[in-house]
Amino acid sequence: MHPVRGVELGTACAGIKQNRRDDLLVMKFSEDSTCAALFTQNAFCAAPVIVARKHLAKAPRYLIVNSGNANAGTGKRGLEDALRTCNSLSTEVGLPAEKVLPFSTGVIGENLPVLKVEEAIPVALASLSEDNWGAAAKAIMTTDSRPKGASLQLDIEGQKITITGISKGSGMIHPNMATMLAFIATDAVVDQPLLQQCLKEAVDVSFNCISVDGDTSTNDSCVLAATGNINEVEIKAGTNAKVLFSEALVTVCKQLAEEIVLDGEGATKLMRVVVENAASEEEAKQVGMVVAQSPLVKTAFFAGDPNWGRILAAVGRAGIEKLDIDALTIWLNEVCIVRNGGRASDYSESAGQSAMSEDEITVRINLARGDCQQRVLSCDLSYDYVKINAEYRT
Amino acid sequence: MHPVRGVELGTACAGIKQNRRDDLLVMKFSEDSTCAALFTQNAFCAAPVIVARKHLAKAPRYLIVNSGNANAGTGKRGLEDALRTCNSLSTEVGLPAEKVLPFSTGVIGENLPVLKVEEAIPVALASLSEDNWGAAAKAIMTTDSRPKGASLQLDIEGQKITITGISKGSGMIHPNMATMLAFIATDAVVDQPLLQQCLKEAVDVSFNCISVDGDTSTNDSCVLAATGNINEVEIKAGTNAKVLFSEALVTVCKQLAEEIVLDGEGATKLMRVVVENAASEEEAKQVGMVVAQSPLVKTAFFAGDPNWGRILAAVGRAGIEKLDIDALTIWLNEVCIVRNGGRASDYSESAGQSAMSEDEITVRINLARGDCQQRVLSCDLSYDYVKINAEYRT
Repeated sequence: MHPVRGVELGTACAGIKQNRRDDLLVMKFSEDSTCAALFTQNAFCAAPVIVARKHLAKAPRYLIVNSGNANAGTGKRGLEDALRTCNSLSTEVGLPAEKVLPFSTGVIGENLPVLKVEEAIPVALASLSEDNWGAAAKAIMTTDSRPKGASLQLDIEGQKITITGISKGSGMIHPNMATMLAFIATDAVVDQPLLQQCLKEAVDVSFNCISVDGDTSTNDSCVLAATGNINEVEIKAGTNAKVLFSEALVTVCKQLAEEIVLDGEGATKLMRVVVENAASEEEAKQVGMVVAQSPLVKTAFFAGDPNWGRILAAVGRAGIEKLDIDALTIWLNEVCIVRNGGRASDYSESAGQSAMSEDEITVRINLARGDCQQRVLSCDLSYDYVKINAEYRT
Repeated sequence: MHPVRGVELGTACAGIKQNRRDDLLVMKFSEDSTCAALFTQNAFCAAPVIVARKHLAKAPRYLIVNSGNANAGTGKRGLEDALRTCNSLSTEVGLPAEKVLPFSTGVIGENLPVLKVEEAIPVALASLSEDNWGAAAKAIMTTDSRPKGASLQLDIEGQKITITGISKGSGMIHPNMATMLAFIATDAVVDQPLLQQCLKEAVDVSFNCISVDGDTSTNDSCVLAATGNINEVEIKAGTNAKVLFSEALVTVCKQLAEEIVLDGEGATKLMRVVVENAASEEEAKQVGMVVAQSPLVKTAFFAGDPNWGRILAAVGRAGIEKLDIDALTIWLNEVCIVRNGGRASDYSESAGQSAMSEDEITVRINLARGDCQQRVLSCDLSYDYVKINAEYRT
C-alpha cells in the first residue's frame, strides 16, 4: 500500500483478548488535516461511536482503534472507558482529548480493559511511521481471515495524489456482529464539508451496497482524512479535480467493500447483483438489496441452482410501484434466464448451471423503466453461515 | 372440524404431480354467500391470482384449488389455463365462469396440466359434502408435513355461529416458495364490505405477522366466505356481534398461521416475538418483524444461545425514530435478559439457557414508549433450512 504523506500509523499488543498479535492501532494525521466520518445507523450504538461522533467536529488529529472488545452494551461505564482512552492518548501527545476519535471492535457486553489499552498506547506511539499500513490492517482484524487494504495514486493537474485505506469485517455477519471498520486517508487538500460529501457519496455505492445478512453492527464506522500535504492543488466542489478524486475514492471503497464480502464467513460464492435501466438509483439499489438478501436466492446460489423463479419473486416483492414483471430481463453472467416475466425461451438448464458453477456470479436485472443502475455485492448462504453463527457463544 | 352450513367440499386425484393422493379441491358456497379475499402483494403474481382478483367482485360460488403446480411464471398461456379450469367447473354446474375463483400451489414455471384437472372436476363435484374439511386440508398440501385446520363455534345473540378454516404452507420458506393458502368459511350473515374488513383485520395480526425468511410467494391467498345460513342474526359494523365475530376469526387465523410456522421446514423452535409498550401497533410490528427475520437472532435460537446483544442490535436497526435503547427491557420467556440498554444485572447465563432450551420461546420486548403491542411468529434458522432450500432443484 502506498503511504500517505501526513499519515503515521503505530500498533501495539495490548493483550485485550489474546497476546498473539497487535490489537491496538494509533493513527496520526498532520496538523491542518480535515477529517470526515460516517457511523452506524443502529440506534443501539457502541460507546466509542457516541464519543467519536462528538469529537469529529473538533478536527481530530488521532484515531485510537482496538480489536478484541467492542465496548458496546456497556452503559455509562462504557462511555467513561472510551473517553479515558482518548484522554490517555491525548495526554501523551499534549493535545485535548477531543482531538482523538476512539473505535472498538470485538465482543460486546464486556467492559473494555482500559488499563491494558493505556499501557499499550506509548508502545503504539513509539512505532508511528508512514509505512505501517500493513501492520495497521492486521491490528484491527477480529475474525477476519486476512487483512484488507486498498491503495491507488492518481494524477490531478500534474500532482500525484494518494488514497490508501484499510478495512475489517467478515461480511457484517460474523459472530457477535463483527463490525465493519474502514480508515482511509489521502494527502490531497479537501475542506471538511466537501470531504464529508465525498465520503458519503463513495460509501453509498460501496460499503452501503454490500450485504451478507442485513444485520448491521453497533460499531460500524468509516473515516476519511485529508492531510493536505500535496497542497499544489485543492479539490474543490464542481471541478474536474473533484470528479477524478471522487472516482478514485469510490474505487478504493469498492475494493475494500468487496474484500469484506469475499471474507464473509461461510461464503463460498460472490454474488454481484447489477440492477440496470431502473427509474432511479434508489430503486435500483432497493431491488438489488432485496435480491441480495433473499435467503431463498442465497441458498440457491450456494447449491449452484439457477433458480430464476426465486430471483423473479424477490424482484417482485421489492416494493417497486407499477413494476411490469413482463418487461424484465435477467441474466446469470452472460446467460439470459428470464425474458417477458418467465423463463427465457432460449435458456437451457446446462447453460444456467455452467454460469452458477463460477466462484463469482453476476445477476444482471434489467427493469426496462429508465436509465439508472446500481450494483450490490453479496454472498451465498451456506451451512457454514448457520454453523458459525449458531456455535458462537456470547 | 365443525362443518359450516352452506359450505360443501369435494376432492379428487387429478394426478398433477403424483397419483398417491388427492390434489384437487372444489369448495361450493350456497347462494347469497358473500366472499372476501386477500392476495399476495408480490408484483410477480401467479395466473390464478390475477383471475381470482378479477372474479372476486362477481360474488363467487365456487373455489377450485389444485396442488402440485403453481401456474406461476407461465405468461399468457397460464392465464388461459386458469380461466379454462374456471370454465370447465362452471359449465358442469351451470354458472358463468366468473363465479369461480381458481387457486394453484406447487412448482412454478411449468404449465398447468389442464386436461388432468378437467377430468378430475366431475369426481370432485360428485364428492361434495359438508363433512369434507379434513380431506380438503389434505388435498391442498404440497410439502406440508401435515394438514392444517382450525375450527370454533361461538354464541352470538343466542345463535351458534361456526368458523372453520384450512391452510397450507410450510412457513413461506419451502423450496420454490411454497405458497400460503387459507380458506375459511362461516355460516354467519356478513355483507361483503364488512366481511372484507374483518378478513383484513384478522390477516394483519395473524398471517401477516408470521415470518420464516421474509420471502413471499407468487400465489399467497386467503379467502373468507360467509354463507349466511344462520340468518337469525346479522353481523353489522359497530355492534358487539361484530366484536365477538372478529375475535373468533382472529383466533382461527392465528391458529392456522401458527401451524404454518410450526411446520416450517428446518424449524426446530417456535419464536414468539411480543413487542409491547410501543407508540403504535405499526411500530410494534416493525420491531417484531426485524427481530423475527434477523439471521443472527434466528441462528442463535437454533443454537439455544441467549444472545441478548443480537436481539438488542436487531431492535436498534428497526428504524424506529428517537428510540431510547436505554429504556428497553427484554425477556426470554420469564427471564429478564436486558435492562437499561445492557445485560440485566440480575441475569444469569444458566437462567437464559434454560429458557432457550424450550421448544417455544417468547421474546418479549418492552419499548417503554406507549401502550400498543403486537406479536410476530417466527422460527429458528437451522442447517436444515439451508439443506432443504439448497438441495431443491427448480
